[in-house]
Amino acid sequence: MMQNAMIAQSGGPTAAINATLAGVIRGLQSSGSCGTVYGALHGITGVIEETFLNLSEKCEEDEAFLNRLVRTPAMYLGSCRIKMPDPAEEKGIYDRIFVTLEKYRVGWFFYIGGNDSMDTITKLSGEAVRRNSPIRFVGVPKTIDNDLVLTDHTPGYGSAAKYIASSMLEIAHDTYIYDLPCVTIVEIMGRDAGWLTASASLARNDYNETPQLVYLPEVPFHRSQFLEDVRGVLKNAKNAVVAVSEGIRDENGVYISAKVKSEDKFGHMQLSGVGKVLENLVKQEIGTKVRSIELSILQRCAGHIASAQDIKESGEQGEAAARMALDGETGVMPAVERISDEPYSYRIVTRRLEEIANQARRVPREWINEAGNDVTEDFIRYARPLILGEQKNEWQDGLPYYLSVKHLSRR
Amino acid sequence: MMQNAMIAQSGGPTAAINATLAGVIRGLQSSGSCGTVYGALHGITGVIEETFLNLSEKCEEDEAFLNRLVRTPAMYLGSCRIKMPDPAEEKGIYDRIFVTLEKYRVGWFFYIGGNDSMDTITKLSGEAVRRNSPIRFVGVPKTIDNDLVLTDHTPGYGSAAKYIASSMLEIAHDTYIYDLPCVTIVEIMGRDAGWLTASASLARNDYNETPQLVYLPEVPFHRSQFLEDVRGVLKNAKNAVVAVSEGIRDENGVYISAKVKSEDKFGHMQLSGVGKVLENLVKQEIGTKVRSIELSILQRCAGHIASAQDIKESGEQGEAAARMALDGETGVMPAVERISDEPYSYRIVTRRLEEIANQARRVPREWINEAGNDVTEDFIRYARPLILGEQKNEWQDGLPYYLSVKHLSRR
Repeated sequence: MMQNAMIAQSGGPTAAINATLAGVIRGLQSSGSCGTVYGALHGITGVIEETFLNLSEKCEEDEAFLNRLVRTPAMYLGSCRIKMPDPAEEKGIYDRIFVTLEKYRVGWFFYIGGNDSMDTITKLSGEAVRRNSPIRFVGVPKTIDNDLVLTDHTPGYGSAAKYIASSMLEIAHDTYIYDLPCVTIVEIMGRDAGWLTASASLARNDYNETPQLVYLPEVPFHRSQFLEDVRGVLKNAKNAVVAVSEGIRDENGVYISAKVKSEDKFGHMQLSGVGKVLENLVKQEIGTKVRSIELSILQRCAGHIASAQDIKESGEQGEAAARMALDGETGVMPAVERISDEPYSYRIVTRRLEEIANQARRVPREWINEAGNDVTEDFIRYARPLILGEQKNEWQDGLPYYLSVKHLSRR
Repeated sequence: MMQNAMIAQSGGPTAAINATLAGVIRGLQSSGSCGTVYGALHGITGVIEETFLNLSEKCEEDEAFLNRLVRTPAMYLGSCRIKMPDPAEEKGIYDRIFVTLEKYRVGWFFYIGGNDSMDTITKLSGEAVRRNSPIRFVGVPKTIDNDLVLTDHTPGYGSAAKYIASSMLEIAHDTYIYDLPCVTIVEIMGRDAGWLTASASLARNDYNETPQLVYLPEVPFHRSQFLEDVRGVLKNAKNAVVAVSEGIRDENGVYISAKVKSEDKFGHMQLSGVGKVLENLVKQEIGTKVRSIELSILQRCAGHIASAQDIKESGEQGEAAARMALDGETGVMPAVERISDEPYSYRIVTRRLEEIANQARRVPREWINEAGNDVTEDFIRYARPLILGEQKNEWQDGLPYYLSVKHLSRR
């Protein structure tokens, strides 16, 4: 009897993670050697609590299912925020997971997620080896933050970058209309890595030089230098537009954001408010009209403006993960290796998970200008291919048509 | 020798105002009886300061100009925020305007804008009558706020509503993913009228019941009732999503927003922060996970997701305005009269400006439920046709392709 497969998703939503899910399903189904494909709801929690969706059935019921899944943002299987314990210290949860996987005759388990998810799948594959379990554990990358090591970029980043750059261009049009000096501060996601904020620079074109200033968490932020930078821009332009990462810190590593909330389970800081802090600073010290905009969660779930290149690669990495697992590999993850920028080309390669988990890749210092207030042409060359191409959206009643996620509400 | 025409834009940006501008130009050109079409930069300021764009030339230089203008958001001619003085009290500015219009042999003047712009054009057409000037002054409606009287709805509203409803649906997908109670508060534009906030309800479909709560400025807001409403929603749903207008007030007319900034020239209050206020209230009183999102200026400049119906009607009203002026009418504005909801049909009619200026149309009380925390089906029937259809966007380097607005930066 054929073995079954199980897939789960974890971490934060992106416009591309369901394209990866569709890719894994497609890869498994086209092999002809996989039985039922299960989706565990809410990440590893779904395995522990045995809440599954029969994805094979979904594909049979609706032949458009996979194509629609590709276009549906956020996470079709839901997410969780669980930090898996050290298997040496807390064996019980692992016992439970392996019992469930065996009960459902799972031969291949896939976890689609970012840094923390790769930690989970590393622990599970390590535990499989210790338990002499034949189950293969494969990670599939996903994070708008683009901060996984050993891959050129991550699924989800291109779509978030496309949303950010498009919004920045539309904000530029909005700022141009009034004939008075104005400072617009746009706060963008990214606690430790500035990849998302850097993508704001892609909005520049032959008529739009905004954002003129880009501040990433990779470089210490100095309030006085910031004010000097803004004053400098206003000498030559009516509108100063500033793209700023939520995670910028001063030279002592203290967040510029006024509201530092409690730490979450992974030891991440929850931030908000840096835009407002800088808005007030400009108001007090420069006195021009000033406003701040927080792109907020819209930057991670805007499926209607996803990058076709990102969606394509996300699916390909899903399919590659399926092939790796079926080939007997475990503790691995597909990754992207770039071959050239222009014309853009790449190949999918295999990486060992233990070399990836719990690390973060930041924007290289040489892709940030010397003053620390902009990115260089190298970054533009790197990021531009990732936002290219548009998906053909389906629409219903005037809105993007997505798959129902009603199965995620339990109450 | 043929007379020339002049067009200006005023008020806040929308995704549709340039479609109206293109409509006026098209209407004038197709008549064969108009000379040069000038665009005055930055509203009436452009007339006073004689800063013009030759729009006829633009059309000749680039045959795609009008089609691209239709898709370009914000305001191609720029805006101003000038409250025109009473002509009886301050004659000088009117002298100046009429001298300039005569100098450029302007026979027809068009002002595309909202409430305040209609006040400007009413004053100018009255002044023309007093001065025995043959110049025709026609207003063309535009406002995402949808608050002009004597018209079924205003150009720009449908596109903003489509952006808001699409974003709400994508936010819904984002909220579904975690398996824990969460309250999401989305702050939407609209100081005095709740049309934009009401459009959040269009995001509901067969799987998504969010936003479950919708608070408009038309009904007094009670903090204790709000908390009871949210608790009620959380009894039956994991996620409570609240759409709230920036302009909600308590029973004494005091804004709920914590940060009430200085008044602007028109006596409007500048608001921000109601989302944060409610976020803190939920955190303190209910204690669930809570976050607030401000849709911000993105809701008025998101050209990439404009409503095709809105864009079509905006152009039609521009063309109608051209016909009215060429027919010798003055002090008028084209408006939409709805014939039926399903199938949606309407006709363009002529309204007298003095019946429109300085008034505001609010959401009728009967389109808000008795509890004051949602809209009724009547609103949905009204608003749905306005967000239907998608524009075919042009893209360049991964971003929406818009016309350059470099001519608006003077420095």
